[in-house]
Formats: sequence, structure tokens, C-alpha cells
Amino acid sequence: MRLSAYTFDTRGPADVSGLRALLDEGRERPDDLLAVIGKTEGNGGRNDFTRELAMQALEHLMAPRLGLAPERVQDRVIFSFSGGTEGVVTPHQIAFFRSGSPDRTRRPRKRLGVAIASTRAFRPEEIGRMAQVEETARAIREAVDELGVDALADVHLVQMKGAIPSYTPEESARAERAGCPLRCDMVWSRAASALATGLALGEIPRERLSDDVIGRDWELYSTVASCSAKPGLERTEIVVFAMSPYWDGDLVIEHGVLADILDADGVRAVLRKAGVDASDAAAVRARLVAAFAKSEADPRGTIRGRRHTMLQDDDIGDTRYSRCVLAAVLASVLGDTRVYVSTRAEHHGPLGGGPLALILRAEAP
Amino acid sequence: MRLSAYTFDTRGPADVSGLRALLDEGRERPDDLLAVIGKTEGNGGRNDFTRELAMQALEHLMAPRLGLAPERVQDRVIFSFSGGTEGVVTPHQIAFFRSGSPDRTRRPRKRLGVAIASTRAFRPEEIGRMAQVEETARAIREAVDELGVDALADVHLVQMKGAIPSYTPEESARAERAGCPLRCDMVWSRAASALATGLALGEIPRERLSDDVIGRDWELYSTVASCSAKPGLERTEIVVFAMSPYWDGDLVIEHGVLADILDADGVRAVLRKAGVDASDAAAVRARLVAAFAKSEADPRGTIRGRRHTMLQDDDIGDTRYSRCVLAAVLASVLGDTRVYVSTRAEHHGPLGGGPLALILRAEAP
Amino acid sequence: MRLSAYTFDTRGPADVSGLRALLDEGRERPDDLLAVIGKTEGNGGRNDFTRELAMQALEHLMAPRLGLAPERVQDRVIFSFSGGTEGVVTPHQIAFFRSGSPDRTRRPRKRLGVAIASTRAFRPEEIGRMAQVEETARAIREAVDELGVDALADVHLVQMKGAIPSYTPEESARAERAGCPLRCDMVWSRAASALATGLALGEIPRERLSDDVIGRDWELYSTVASCSAKPGLERTEIVVFAMSPYWDGDLVIEHGVLADILDADGVRAVLRKAGVDASDAAAVRARLVAAFAKSEADPRGTIRGRRHTMLQDDDIGDTRYSRCVLAAVLASVLGDTRVYVSTRAEHHGPLGGGPLALILRAEAP
Amino acid sequence: MRLSAYTFDTRGPADVSGLRALLDEGRERPDDLLAVIGKTEGNGGRNDFTRELAMQALEHLMAPRLGLAPERVQDRVIFSFSGGTEGVVTPHQIAFFRSGSPDRTRRPRKRLGVAIASTRAFRPEEIGRMAQVEETARAIREAVDELGVDALADVHLVQMKGAIPSYTPEESARAERAGCPLRCDMVWSRAASALATGLALGEIPRERLSDDVIGRDWELYSTVASCSAKPGLERTEIVVFAMSPYWDGDLVIEHGVLADILDADGVRAVLRKAGVDASDAAAVRARLVAAFAKSEADPRGTIRGRRHTMLQDDDIGDTRYSRCVLAAVLASVLGDTRVYVSTRAEHHGPLGGGPLALILRAEAP
Repeated sequence: MRLSAYTFDTRGPADVSGLRALLDEGRERPDDLLAVIGKTEGNGGRNDFTRELAMQALEHLMAPRLGLAPERVQDRVIFSFSGGTEGVVTPHQIAFFRSGSPDRTRRPRKRLGVAIASTRAFRPEEIGRMAQVEETARAIREAVDELGVDALADVHLVQMKGAIPSYTPEESARAERAGCPLRCDMVWSRAASALATGLALGEIPRERLSDDVIGRDWELYSTVASCSAKPGLERTEIVVFAMSPYWDGDLVIEHGVLADILDADGVRAVLRKAGVDASDAAAVRARLVAAFAKSEADPRGTIRGRRHTMLQDDDIGDTRYSRCVLAAVLASVLGDTRVYVSTRAEHHGPLGGGPLALILRAEAP
Repeated sequence: MRLSAYTFDTRGPADVSGLRALLDEGRERPDDLLAVIGKTEGNGGRNDFTRELAMQALEHLMAPRLGLAPERVQDRVIFSFSGGTEGVVTPHQIAFFRSGSPDRTRRPRKRLGVAIASTRAFRPEEIGRMAQVEETARAIREAVDELGVDALADVHLVQMKGAIPSYTPEESARAERAGCPLRCDMVWSRAASALATGLALGEIPRERLSDDVIGRDWELYSTVASCSAKPGLERTEIVVFAMSPYWDGDLVIEHGVLADILDADGVRAVLRKAGVDASDAAAVRARLVAAFAKSEADPRGTIRGRRHTMLQDDDIGDTRYSRCVLAAVLASVLGDTRVYVSTRAEHHGPLGGGPLALILRAEAP
Repeated sequence: MRLSAYTFDTRGPADVSGLRALLDEGRERPDDLLAVIGKTEGNGGRNDFTRELAMQALEHLMAPRLGLAPERVQDRVIFSFSGGTEGVVTPHQIAFFRSGSPDRTRRPRKRLGVAIASTRAFRPEEIGRMAQVEETARAIREAVDELGVDALADVHLVQMKGAIPSYTPEESARAERAGCPLRCDMVWSRAASALATGLALGEIPRERLSDDVIGRDWELYSTVASCSAKPGLERTEIVVFAMSPYWDGDLVIEHGVLADILDADGVRAVLRKAGVDASDAAAVRARLVAAFAKSEADPRGTIRGRRHTMLQDDDIGDTRYSRCVLAAVLASVLGDTRVYVSTRAEHHGPLGGGPLALILRAEAP
Repeated sequence: MRLSAYTFDTRGPADVSGLRALLDEGRERPDDLLAVIGKTEGNGGRNDFTRELAMQALEHLMAPRLGLAPERVQDRVIFSFSGGTEGVVTPHQIAFFRSGSPDRTRRPRKRLGVAIASTRAFRPEEIGRMAQVEETARAIREAVDELGVDALADVHLVQMKGAIPSYTPEESARAERAGCPLRCDMVWSRAASALATGLALGEIPRERLSDDVIGRDWELYSTVASCSAKPGLERTEIVVFAMSPYWDGDLVIEHGVLADILDADGVRAVLRKAGVDASDAAAVRARLVAAFAKSEADPRGTIRGRRHTMLQDDDIGDTRYSRCVLAAVLASVLGDTRVYVSTRAEHHGPLGGGPLALILRAEAP
């Protein structure tokens, strides 16, 4: 199996010209398209329709090329879009292609491999509780196994779209009467998904986990999780990125944790782990393919010991600010404005901080 | 003359507790207060009343201590507030005190000195034209002379509140009929003030300046100007910061130009010029007193060759984005969230970039 | 006792020129100033500093005239400001003066009287529970008694600033462990204050009230309550407006309930109850002094049976929308853009609707 | 020819379920679809992608049903979407179908007819000048002629998408040097389109029009124009709504002018002209089909003689406020939240006001 990745700047959410040209020129086969991940210029919130527009445009691009109805395309290809290109971020898409067939021949050098998995459908009362954590961890391990990694430490990014099954007011009332109120929302779904990643990858011991610590004990976190949650979704969709001796291509991945959204040193540390000299802009540029990070406005109201105002602003949301800040810091270190920062980071890295994963070329071209 | 500076975090725009304590404890004399410069948590725009609130609170603090009516306090002390603490910026105030009496004894080491000047009152038709440029340059040179600098290169920051005299619709119509439409607004006043700084300090030769290049030829710029303009103001108020052998104290200043709002290397270069190792966070922290910078969303719509969306967003203004980005980059390099970034930078540094001035302790404590 | 009211348009939150002129011209005595209620052009949210600016300006205006320190002025005069002049609202202040001395001579015609009261200090665990409801009801009745109304139906507006005492994280955790989590926030404080009004005025029978119905049973509401809550406030401040045979002046008050924020008929009904022909714009203009209303974006997500988007917008808050809508409807019926609409209306009128009180001249001038 | 209209509430910009059901149930034929006009829940500005999403969804709905490629659908059907459902507006679509074949038999009663026209392609230097005005007027008259109206007064709405051809910086510089700077933007294109409507329909005498009055003399206006302008569009697209004796169906149209965005009386006057008793909510509901209006925040900064703050707010644009206000007033009078208010109204009705057109059923069902 061979993985390749292409980054396209977009002129708007519906701009799929980059991917179209790639396919029309025959440089990649439609059937090999595994996932398209992108940032669109919406507000990233409830009334952000730019993600839907991007996905609709991709469905209509791919449907005839895959011989599917548009509404079936996402059964075959993962589309994962995050709204919010605050500040310097260039709206862009990254397309991943997987070619060749799986084989179990170890290669001399590990390369980035990608596997996809899905949980079973969740019931509303499971979200934000151990049932979600354990089933999600199971699905993550399934994907990890498929990749054939040498060690769990070779997993560097677990991108998830977290389930938030629909429920009726009656179900909610019943759960509350039963003393176990529903946690079926974005916050809880992200939190449980991140803890599930930590559990699956051995970052968090099973015995420290319980319904009570979810969304509460912020010392428990994963360093590779990246979850957004989507109302109406019944199953959590999982994409695991890991270094595998069974995968080919020119891509590698590395990750680390940023202590806060100003942590430029943390960004440089990830580059260094990947063997890139952060002070050599040309070297970084030659190797960087993609950057995935999670941001949050520190909920304690301070950063580096001083007050910030992101949580007291009724005109601009804290999610927009924290994306803007972290993306600026990433771009200033990496020299690239095509960075993927999504927001809200419950149990994703330490409080106020979050994971960073970099996909790089194995060697400078 | 001896200059000292104090930085106070504020809990809100009206919080003057830091300065009050300093004065009440007798650590500085009210009469020595020269200027208070600060960032407040407003939107930095037309309906930002946080600056007024901060200044009103300071007037009421100082009036009894100076034996003046509140409305007379600003005749004695410069208050300069910039709204907009987007992202990580901590609202704060920096108070400058000048003690001792002027003397002309050269000291062995230059120190930061500050001088204040004011232009004559402008007529509306002068704003944005050479009349404004030349009178402003004259006033700047007056302040520079007062400081007794060895060379114009010792001037590192010229903070200005640019005049925008009021005018009637009739005056505007008459000017238009005369073929010389008024330029009496913020954009033009800032632009002319910056060019005036460049002229006064020898950065821009007189023969390259004319009414036609103002607000048009962006290759002409000052590297030390920092101007905001204020409707209703008749005279441009000027504060010059320079290294002088006739001043005492523990403060020095250095400056440089940022190529764009992501230019972390440019920030490090200013530290280096000031003899500070940018990679040593403790050293930076020990010496940094204040950072002043100008940001702008590159009007060409790109940054580092790629599209940005700051100029196409109808929910959040580009001034808020550019401040957020540059402040994040500054804070990530300097390790301090008390940075003063104001926005719009016509002829302030190159297009898309802007000047940066750092005030530092002469030696680590 | 004689009540008079003056409305001043303001040029900004700190504009107190109207009140200053009134006092300086000797038309009213500073000592008689009872309350200043106003709308300022902020966002009405957590980072709205326009209210503070307005109150600071008023404190500095009144302090020398009352022979008090600025920080003592609010012990004598009620200042109640609401931020948010979305759409057509003209920022304005209404000053109420009370002159003469209390006497118990019945006059032939009732007139608007105003009384002020305050609850005892609340403990955090009382907020949002029956303890707050009952103590607030007691204080309201105290003010009502002082006014000497003939019947509770003569009370038409109870303006409250609801207490939200500060608490420590430990207090919060302890309350949660005790199975009685704190409700000490704006939502609960407003809700309990409104129910207290209903209880005090006989709108809601005591037996229907309990901790469980607060913030839940929206069929229980007051038609005259108007409460905003303020973090840090220990006592709820209460201003009662009622028709009293012991008060003199040229003002009357009437109220009603709006079924939703589009309820123009409801506005006309209040005018009609006050004897004003709503279709005669000149008559309305001649008599209207002030309008106080509460708005909310219907939490069910619909209005008049159709979807609205106010609750799904991450760029503009629903409070801003609902104020804009109701103020537009009020201004379109009343022909005056100086309307006081504040937002969030838990138990203030029916779900999605709210109370409206109009102060009018007793007779057209 | 017979016209019919259907209004669908939408659950989001891409929701075309209403139209799909109508077609799938065979109640109308796809080939008869003339136009879909709608409001979407975006910000109505430069980064509003909800219009594009709605149109993309409609293209994909109609393409197979019309036997066309998606990108050709708009050659056959007019899609006109306006972003911004501020406040109470319910996002919705109105689909117009035209059935039967044109004939010249006068019917006893006039009914609403619709005709479509297009200008020739404009050059950038023509926009905002008389060339645009005259060609647009010509195209409007062409559409009016096609409808066979008895008199120009039978035209009640001219909905236009105004051309803004692209141009190079060189073209712009050349025009400026030639003393005739380009006016090729939204403001000028809307202004010229509205004047063109006034010219075509005899509202404005030809001799009062010249390049100089466009965008300047606000006493010249149309009472039936409704233009939005679209960058990149070369030809202005025109839809004329008029009462015609050659059209059949159950629809009529009436119009009037609102003096300002609070003009509830103006709304009632249009109802009255259409024979509907505005005070009878059931009667209005039974007959109202659609409402089209133009709003603007009065550029003089006042409304009904008092200050408004819509033009000084850097957090929320004046277009959003004015739509919110006028939509609230319309909905409060009409009892329907499905109102189409678009914004900016240069030469559309008097300064601060604008046209209102109501489509109604000829008789209550």
C-alpha cells in the first residue's frame, strides 16, 4: 500500500479545481481517493455552511468518477472539513490517495499509513460515558491493527468525527429522572473520544478512567487525538495516521504536544523529532506537507500567567480567537499558512494546550 | 533627566489600581507622570468606548493629585490608548515617569529618553498632503532636538496621534469643486504622519515626497513611525522615544521592521540588535519592558504568497484579525502577552509589514 | 411627593450634558434625583463597558452636586443601564426626580409613584431557589406598601438588578456534593426575581412555587417584572413603579404582555388601556414618556410557527437580535426610537414574549 | 400563460426538499420552473456562501429533471438568493412556475405576470454611468412589452442582478488618467439599475438624468426597483413583475414606498391598495404570498429625527441591522416571517426608505 498526499489552495469552499485537475490529468485514480481533509472560510460554528458546501462540491465531483450517487460518495471517501480560517490561514484541501494492495512484506523504512474505522451506532445515553470510550477505543485499535504498526508509539494522529446520536425530549427527561442525565452533546462526545484514544494507545491506564473523570479530570489526555463531534452522527468515524513498515510512499508523520497556543518551542520540537532543522526555513518548506493541531482558549482565563479576554467577548467567540492565535504561531514557525487548526480540545493535550501532528516528506525533494 | 516605566495588567478599562498604588505608596511623584500608554479590550473601532473609559478613569485619578480639573489633565499628561486585545493580549497600561531636571551633561552610556511635541493646528485641506507632512516633520525634529540625540538613527519610535480637524459639508464641497478634494480622514492622516517621520529622520529624501505619493507609493515608509489618527483632533500629538546621552535610567530601546505579520525572525532580529538572545526565554523576560508594533492585513490579499481571508470577512474586521495574528507571533517569541499592537500601517514599514520597537531594561536585574 | 421625568438623547455613553444642563439651569434639584435609567450603545454582554462609562460619568457629574465622593453616589441614586441599541434605538437616558415630602393625603387622581427597596444580602446557595424568591417578594411588597397603592393591580413595573453573590470553587463543589448544585448565575437570578414579582403581586399563587419550577415551568410568570442580574451584587436592588393616590405629577403608567417580539397588537393594547389612540401618531407622541420591555429569542426556535435562526448564529448573539426586533416593532408603533428593551425574559411574560410598560403624560401638553 | 407560486420554508441553505416534493408529486412540471427566489441564513456579505450552497443544491436538483448539466441550469431558470435572515426571518424559497403558452387574449381581470430580460454585456467604464442606465432601461422595457401591460403603472417590481464586469488594474488606472475613474462596483451598479428602472417606467424624466446625478441626487428614485449587484456578472439580469390582462392564475401584485425602515403605515397602505384590511390578520394571512423590500440604515445617521448607531458599529454591519429592523416591522404587520428584505437601496425609494412589493392571492382561498 502506498500513500500519497496533495494540498490544494482553494478560492472558495466549493472550489474543487485542484482535485479535479489531478484526476482529469490521470495523476491519481478516483478509486484510490481515501480522504479529503480541509479548512474552509466559515465561522466553524452552528451556522457554518461552508463545510457542507465543500462536501457537496466534492460529492458532485466524485459521484460520476466513482459511479455512485452523490449521497453515497461519503460511504467510500472520508470528507473532513473544519470551518474557520481566521487570520492568516489559507483555505485549503489535502487529498490522500491509497494505491496498491495490502501486503505484509516489511519494508526497510517505515512510512505513513492511514486506516479507517467506525464504531457501532451509539445510543444517546452512552455518549460522554465509558460505553463510548470503550467502543471508540476498540475501533481505534482495529484501525491500528490494520496498519500493522510496530508499537503504539508509531500512531501519531487519530482524527475522529464523534457521534452525537439524536434523541427525543422524552429520552432526555427519562434519563434525568433515572439520575443519569444525557451527556449527548459536542463537548462530551469530543471528551470521550479523546480519552478513548488515550486508552487505545496506552497513554491512559484503564483504571484511571470512569464516567466521573470524563470532562472533569484534565490531567488525563491523549497527545494524538483530534476529534470534532457532529450532531446527528450515530457512529464515530475514525482515521488513524501511523508509521508502518507495511506502507510505502514518501510521507512520514510526527507529533508532539503544545503546552499552550503560544508554544512555538513545542512546534519546533516536533520538527526536530522529525529530523528537520526548524531554523532552516527552506528545509522546513521542502519537507512539510500538512499540520494538524487543536486549539483552545485556556478556560482558566489566563495564558502564561496573565489574563486573556477570549472568554469574555460577546462579539467574537473564543473558538475563533484560539484558532487565529495558534494558526499564526504555527505559520510563523512553519512558514506555511496552510495549517489545519480545529478547536475545543477537551482531553486533547493538557488544559490550554493540545496535540500537534506534522505530516512531512520522508526526504526533501 | 531620568526615565522610568511601569507596566500594569488591568482587570478592565477603568482599572487604574496599579498606577494609584504606585503613587499612593510614594514610589513616583504625580507631577513626574509623562505618559500612560495602554491596550484596552474594545474593538478598536468607531464604537470602542473602552479608550474613553480608561482615559476618564485616569483623569479622575490624576486630577486631585495634580491639582487640576479632570478635563485639564490631558494638557499635562499624554494618554494614548489603543483598543483591541484580540487573542492572547493582556489588557495593560505602561506609565512613563520623567524625574530630575534637564541638563546637558553627557553620560557615558545612552539611555531611553522621551520628548513630547505638537504640531500647529491643521486646516482640513492640509491633511493627507505635504502641508501636514512638513509641519509634522518639523515638530518631530523639535522633539528630537530636545532629546539631544547623537544621530537620527538613535530615534526608535515616534508615537503619534494624528490630527483630523472637523469640517463642514460646505468645506468639503468647495474643496472638491476646486479640484482638490479633502483627504481629511484617518487613512490619510496616518499616511502623512508616517511619511513625515520618514522625512524628519532622513529615512525618505524630501525630493521623493509629494501630494501624489501619499497613500500611493508604498515603497516609501518609515521604520519607526506609529500613528493612529483621531477625528476632531486639530494638532498631531507626538511622542519621540530615542537613545540619548543626556538621559538616565535603566531603559533602552531598539527597533526593526517586520516584513509581514508572521515575521518571527524579524522580532528576533530586534532582540539581537538589543543584545538579547532570543532563544533564552529567561533572558528575554528579564529585560523586556514593552513592545510596540503596527499590524495590517496585507491589502494584496495574500501573505507569504498564499491567500488570506481577512479582507473578505463581513463578520470580523481585518483590523481585529491582523492585531490578533501579530500579537500572537510577538507573544510567542517574546514570551509576554503584554504587547501593544495597533493597526493600519500606511507607510509604516513595507506593505503588509510594519515597525516594531522594543523597550528593554539596560541590564537584566 | 411629586415625580417628574426627563429624557435625554446621548451622543455617547459618557454624554451627561442633558442632565447637567437641567441641573445647572436650576430646573430640578440634585438632591431630588431618584434614578437614571438608560440605554447605551454597547453589546449588552460581558465585555460591554459602555454601562460602566455612563455610570462613571454620572458619578462624576453628581458627586460635587451631592457633596459625595463619586463612589458613594450610587448609594443615593439608582443608575440602571442596559447595553445594546441595536437597529433603530437612540441611546438615551431617563432621569426621574422626586420632590416634596411624603404625605398621606389622597389625591383625586392617581399618579405614577416610584419606590426603592433592597433585599438582604443573599448567600450563593439561595440564588435561583425559593429563599431568593421569598426575600425578593418581601422587599417588593415593602416598596409597594411605601407607595400606598390601592391595589396590587396598580403596580405596573418592577425593575430589578438581581443579586449574584460571588462564591469560591470550593463552595460550588461542596454544594454539588451536597446534591444541591449552585444556581448562582444570571439566568437563575433573573428567573427567581421574576417569580418573586409574581408572588408579591398575587400573579402567581404561593403553592405553585417551589425550587423545581424555577427556570422550568414557563407557564408561571409575572407581567410586570423586569430583571437583569449582575455578577458580584449581593443584594437585589428593586425599583417599583405604580399608580398611587398619594403621588403627584403629570405621569401615569400602564402595562401589558406581549405574546412575542412581533406583537404590535400587544403594544397597541397597552396604549389603549392608557386611553391613547394608537392610530393617532400625534396623540401617542404627545403623551409617551418612556417604554420598558423585555425581549427574547423564542427558545423553541420558532416564532409564529415558523423557524427563526437567532439561536443558531455564532457571529451575532440572540440577545442582540431579539432586542433589535422588539425595539423596531415598538418604535414602529410608538413612533419613538427611545425605547428601553433589555433581554432574556425567564418567567417575564410567556415563553418568547415579555412584559411591556409605558410611562405616559397624564394629559397631552 | 398562467403563473403560480409556492413558498417553502427551508431547514438550511441546501434544503430543496419542498421543491423536490412538488416536482416528484407531479404538481408542477420542471420545464415550467421560471425562477426561485429565496432568503438564506448567511451574512449577506462577501463571505456569505449560503447563496452559493442554495444555488448549487438547486442546480443538482434540476439538472437531471431538465436534462441539463448542472452548470447550465441557470441559463434556463433564474435563481436569486439574498443572504441575511436577521432576527425573525424564516429562511425560505419562493418558486415561480409559468405554464401554458403565450396568447394575446385579454382576460377580464389582470393577473400577475413575470418576464425575464437581460442587458447586453457591459464594459467596466459603463457601470454607474448613463450607458448602464440606458441599456438597462431598454432591457426592462423589453420585458415590460412582453408582458403586455396596459400601463407602466401596472409594473410593480423589477428585480435585478446588476452587472459588475471584471477589470484589470491597468484598465482602472487608464480610466483614472482619462479623468473618468471606474465606478465598477456594487454601489454604482445598484444605483444605475434603480435609475434605469425609474427611467424605463416613467418615474424619472430622461432630462433629469446624467452621470452626475447617479449616486448623488437622492431625490431621484424608483419605487419598484430591487437590485443587488454581483461582481463578475457581465449582463444585468432582470425579472419584471407586473399586472397583465394576458396572464392567468390566482396571483396579483401591489407596491408602495416606505418612508423609512419603521414605516408600518406604509406597509398597511400597500395592503389597502390591494384591497386587504391590514387590521384583519386572518385576511392578510389568507392572501399574502410574498413580500419584497429594500432596507437601508439611513446614511444621515438619524431616523425619525433621532440618532441611530447602525453606521458606527464595527462589530455588526449596518446591512444586517437594517434588514433585521425592516423585516421585523414587515413581519409584525403582515403576520408572516417569510419576508424577503435585501439591503442597500441607492435610488430605491427615498433616502432611508425603500420600495415594498407584495404578491397576494387574487382572492382568499
